[in-house]
Amino acid sequence: MEPQLAQRPADWLVLGGDVGGTSTRILVAAGDGTPVGRGVAGGGNPVSHPDTAAAALGQALTAALAGIDPLRVCAAVVGVAGGSALSRPEVRAAFDRVWSETGVSCAPAYVSDLEIAFAAGTADPDGTVLIAGTGAVAGAIEGRRLVRTVDGHGWLLGDDGSGFWLGREAARATLRTLDAGEPPGPLASSVLRALDAPDEPRPSAQPTDPYWERVRVIDSLNSRPPVRLAELAPSVTAAFTVGDPQAVLIVDEAAQLLFETVRRVRRSDERTPIVLAGSVASTDSPVGVALRTLVTEGLSGPTLSARDGVAGAGWLALTAAEANSATEEARNRLSSV
Amino acid sequence: MEPQLAQRPADWLVLGGDVGGTSTRILVAAGDGTPVGRGVAGGGNPVSHPDTAAAALGQALTAALAGIDPLRVCAAVVGVAGGSALSRPEVRAAFDRVWSETGVSCAPAYVSDLEIAFAAGTADPDGTVLIAGTGAVAGAIEGRRLVRTVDGHGWLLGDDGSGFWLGREAARATLRTLDAGEPPGPLASSVLRALDAPDEPRPSAQPTDPYWERVRVIDSLNSRPPVRLAELAPSVTAAFTVGDPQAVLIVDEAAQLLFETVRRVRRSDERTPIVLAGSVASTDSPVGVALRTLVTEGLSGPTLSARDGVAGAGWLALTAAEANSATEEARNRLSSV
Repeated sequence: MEPQLAQRPADWLVLGGDVGGTSTRILVAAGDGTPVGRGVAGGGNPVSHPDTAAAALGQALTAALAGIDPLRVCAAVVGVAGGSALSRPEVRAAFDRVWSETGVSCAPAYVSDLEIAFAAGTADPDGTVLIAGTGAVAGAIEGRRLVRTVDGHGWLLGDDGSGFWLGREAARATLRTLDAGEPPGPLASSVLRALDAPDEPRPSAQPTDPYWERVRVIDSLNSRPPVRLAELAPSVTAAFTVGDPQAVLIVDEAAQLLFETVRRVRRSDERTPIVLAGSVASTDSPVGVALRTLVTEGLSGPTLSARDGVAGAGWLALTAAEANSATEEARNRLSSV
Repeated sequence: MEPQLAQRPADWLVLGGDVGGTSTRILVAAGDGTPVGRGVAGGGNPVSHPDTAAAALGQALTAALAGIDPLRVCAAVVGVAGGSALSRPEVRAAFDRVWSETGVSCAPAYVSDLEIAFAAGTADPDGTVLIAGTGAVAGAIEGRRLVRTVDGHGWLLGDDGSGFWLGREAARATLRTLDAGEPPGPLASSVLRALDAPDEPRPSAQPTDPYWERVRVIDSLNSRPPVRLAELAPSVTAAFTVGDPQAVLIVDEAAQLLFETVRRVRRSDERTPIVLAGSVASTDSPVGVALRTLVTEGLSGPTLSARDGVAGAGWLALTAAEANSATEEARNRLSSV
């Protein structure tokens, strides 16, 4: 769906949004890309909690538009994690209610988070994008639109190489160590410390011999909400930096899995840009570093990084408002912090 | 814990029990192994639902002891899936309440399901046992007692090669097929049919193009309780029998994972029996067949099958009651149906 352009005043603005599971961000920018308003709020899964997600969107919109005449906004693009969420009537209704309260006269184009991540990484219209954070999903982009997706199947069935996957592998490696009765290395020690965090006191009645330690760890991991396994991902990074062999294997496998996800979404002869986004795929992450090596060696086309999805949304809005405004200078201004 | 022997009448009996997640079975037998009473009831996870599990035990005990003087029972051994369950005071209290209502004067020895499965497969005191059903766990047995466990970590973190694992891999293979836009083969078709079962009507509002089909399947799989993935395991078996390449790979990997679980719990120079139990490890299952080949080629010691855990519990009770009674003839009688 193309953004609907409102009657355009001389001092027109565009609005970009990024509605994610952990945060909601809004950017309002002038026609030359200069940011004039920003808003940040909490996140929320729009499928399972449409009202929470919509409320966060409303809060971020209010903050970003403070002191700005909403009628100046002539194009708006909002990326939503989980591309299908807005197809649900209850989600769409909750988002529409919030939007109508902003006073912005143009309707927003809701797009996939993959589309804004790709736009945040490159001005090219075609290519491949991977988002690897708590989850993992890759998309094929043609004409700035998502045409095909690989993985993003959720923690139960996929998200291979994601933050959840890393945390689960950290737990699995720890249990293998306990099964074998071996002393825990840096990774297993870090996981065991994380499980003894202050909010989960060790039951004082339980003995501390290896058998019961093992039972305690299995019970503790299985009694928490599964998604909390993602909290153990930093243990992998920490253990990797000190050379723990289990952590090195996990990082290598995560990078390999994410590379496969990228490879599967892309035609083998393709030379378009490959945009990597999300904390696990970032240049600060051991997985992101290993992944870049695999992508550079195994695929053709430049490998780029997307840091700020909301800037990509702003860029897409600018492109829709007036293609001539969508210059490299405008991109740089949108990404400035 | 050794079974407590009650005052023994001349016509003494023993009692064996198997408390599992899907069924609870009780066998009462004479000193020569001849069954004189049987009871079956539903199962229940003793950790999450102690009262349900205890009620099932009570129901099976009542049926098995119908018309029998409970004071004739001089030894009782009951295997409980999830070896640690009885260490929880609330589980133990619920089981004790039920037992005291039977009128049996000896206290039961609650043991691991691995111990009764091993005893069901061999009269030897030492060896290795694998149970692969919905879950997967291996144990090292010394002097008929469980001394070490590998895996049994639950569906979230392990149970590699189990029925749950098979079902999840079937779902993953189906999603990979949908990601690639390929036509579903026998495995994916079987999974898609299972998801369109009458209790889960296809939302009529959703279009049927490949993109929405993919979204529908992902949402459907993720919105059901995770353990229901085990229901897809039969799709793997069915597709394997018609040579589906995805199913063949999944069966081979399951067998390899179960073999690794057995290998890890066993000393490399060990020549003791290896007992395979549970539906996935049975001789009727493609995984069980492939697993037997790996075990026979890769490990020393006879490979045996355990069919009836409750007969193993009865045998352990007979051994405890009077070692001289625990003959091969008595074993055969206990296993007769």
